[in-house]
Amino acid sequence: MSTSFDTLDSLDTPAAVIDLARMQRNIDRMQQRMNALGVRFRPHVKTSKCRPVVRAQLAAGAQGITVSTLKEAEYFFAEGVTDIVYAVGMAAHRLPQALALRRRGCDLKVLTDSVASAHAIAAFGRANGEVFDVLIEVDTDGHRSGIRPDDPVLLEVGHILQAGGMRLAGVLTHAGSSYELNTPEALTALAEQERAGCVGAAERLRAADLPCPVVSVGSTPTALAAAHLEGITEVRAGVYVFFDLVMHNVGVCTTDDLALSVLATVIGHQVDKGWAIVDAGWMAMSRDRGTQKQQRDYGYGQVCAMDGTVLPGYVMSQANQEHGIVSCEGAPDRDITEIFPLGTRLRILPNHACATGAQFPEYRALSADGLLAAWERLYGW
Amino acid sequence: MSTSFDTLDSLDTPAAVIDLARMQRNIDRMQQRMNALGVRFRPHVKTSKCRPVVRAQLAAGAQGITVSTLKEAEYFFAEGVTDIVYAVGMAAHRLPQALALRRRGCDLKVLTDSVASAHAIAAFGRANGEVFDVLIEVDTDGHRSGIRPDDPVLLEVGHILQAGGMRLAGVLTHAGSSYELNTPEALTALAEQERAGCVGAAERLRAADLPCPVVSVGSTPTALAAAHLEGITEVRAGVYVFFDLVMHNVGVCTTDDLALSVLATVIGHQVDKGWAIVDAGWMAMSRDRGTQKQQRDYGYGQVCAMDGTVLPGYVMSQANQEHGIVSCEGAPDRDITEIFPLGTRLRILPNHACATGAQFPEYRALSADGLLAAWERLYGW
Repeated sequence: MSTSFDTLDSLDTPAAVIDLARMQRNIDRMQQRMNALGVRFRPHVKTSKCRPVVRAQLAAGAQGITVSTLKEAEYFFAEGVTDIVYAVGMAAHRLPQALALRRRGCDLKVLTDSVASAHAIAAFGRANGEVFDVLIEVDTDGHRSGIRPDDPVLLEVGHILQAGGMRLAGVLTHAGSSYELNTPEALTALAEQERAGCVGAAERLRAADLPCPVVSVGSTPTALAAAHLEGITEVRAGVYVFFDLVMHNVGVCTTDDLALSVLATVIGHQVDKGWAIVDAGWMAMSRDRGTQKQQRDYGYGQVCAMDGTVLPGYVMSQANQEHGIVSCEGAPDRDITEIFPLGTRLRILPNHACATGAQFPEYRALSADGLLAAWERLYGW
Repeated sequence: MSTSFDTLDSLDTPAAVIDLARMQRNIDRMQQRMNALGVRFRPHVKTSKCRPVVRAQLAAGAQGITVSTLKEAEYFFAEGVTDIVYAVGMAAHRLPQALALRRRGCDLKVLTDSVASAHAIAAFGRANGEVFDVLIEVDTDGHRSGIRPDDPVLLEVGHILQAGGMRLAGVLTHAGSSYELNTPEALTALAEQERAGCVGAAERLRAADLPCPVVSVGSTPTALAAAHLEGITEVRAGVYVFFDLVMHNVGVCTTDDLALSVLATVIGHQVDKGWAIVDAGWMAMSRDRGTQKQQRDYGYGQVCAMDGTVLPGYVMSQANQEHGIVSCEGAPDRDITEIFPLGTRLRILPNHACATGAQFPEYRALSADGLLAAWERLYGW
């Protein structure tokens, strides 16, 4: 309900706070790495869904964006971003919306991973006199969608698009299984698997006289772990912009890199249990328990002081809709009312920045001077 | 993006669909039970955060509402609801907002469970010439906030409020641990524990010459399991209005009672694995995995046909942000592309209706005639 500019002391809680210095550092780190590897960088905006965040990514050198919904495409196209990859398999019923975006000047690229879907795109394009730019999704780690690089369907889909008059824009893969790893060696190996698989798919298409200008890979862990990216033209990554506890457990950032936190207020205690109750529950943190199966389980989040300092051992151990239970590992803190008196403000680092951000209509962007600007966030479909 | 009235065939996906006939049946069932038990019923609107849903609850006989945020109080007060219990411990920094609501005519009741918070409410009330109606939160099952019925602090808080010039409205408890049970016997026992603890707290206050007009209990499972409610004046419950898979596992509804589902479209397959990929991931279902530790784990949800018929064994087994993986238990369906061809629409029953609903800007209310109206949903704080 508050207007800009608030401070962390005056802001209503819960609030999703972006540490701008950390965010900029994360953006610069990734962009510099992509520059050094000699590839274009196309951030996935599904993490932030926020205009000033995406502006900062583009200002640092990103070329185009990746989106997870056509609503994101509409939102950022209205902001002047034209080069957009919609990185979810194109559903036939959404083709009219994609067409309308392209007719308005959006250079929207769509995705397919099946014969049926390629036929649907080509048929709709022909019927409407539109040459869609189409990427073929390649499956390099078996975690979700895509055609395996050696699957005959790859060439079949390429020929359908080509014969159907569409523009075969290239191949795209996402090694999402990287979230399950936690050693540099395993990450570098998966990054190479992702690279080699995607390049292999591109080479098969080219060997069949099909065009394949774009070879697009990416996930935050593999982007940060790749030894080289030969044959790759662009990389996509999303969560690196904020990082989170899952990424910390994967091993690609420190907790000092985490740019998103949830500001909460202590509203009660259970002294016998060593609990402080805060006014941020799962509605604020999201229900994401991504660290549950990782080497370190942070419950619903790592507790920090107002200045962002991690308070070791203190986590949000349980959450109800608007209540979070903050406690320390080990024996209960019988002096919890003195450690975190009523009204204390805490900042909770989330398991998963994409999920936590999505719970809030706006971020609060915290500058070095301690002021907070309200940054709108896109919501829904 | 679509306007009313759509049908399930024309609606963009993902969408949160309310089956109105089921919702009304759930509302009637709970209200009739409360009437038979001789208590007032005050639904918790945090589940739906939706005006037409709350109107249906009030039309059926509910008296007043329960909210989890002051934003909900503002929203439903603007709708004409005046009798509102804010059932989260009152944070001092929110007292000006509560005061403003009361000055505008809202009969807002606030909650405390500590000496420090009671002092803060009384001091603020006196400083502003306002007599707040204050409920004392009682802890009857150890799961979250509240003062135990036999704790000396109960009377201390009562005296602070009384001496401070506030109106001691009564006692309130929520046996949230009922979500962890799954037999009628255990639920009835916990309902009795909740009732007896709350009534006991009320009697202690009255024996100390403190007023205690309201004795308020509730959770969906205990409300449906209580053998009697002697000494109770009102019951609160939220999720009963839609029910969900967690409540089904608790044993208080059948899957045919589940009024909320997520409409999704099949956008791909992985034939070797027997996967159908749908365009509803965790952004649509929420990250809630509430059935994970229950007797039956539904993954991210139970898959149903378009007409709402449960498809036994088919669940959303995995979810990414905008991708859900639908699969059958057991050996992979090698004919998955024929079972759920590209473009097939499915309805997924969620683990937790409160969490899933919160992912959507609006519900789609499905009438018996197959038409869908768009119903706005409140979002954020």
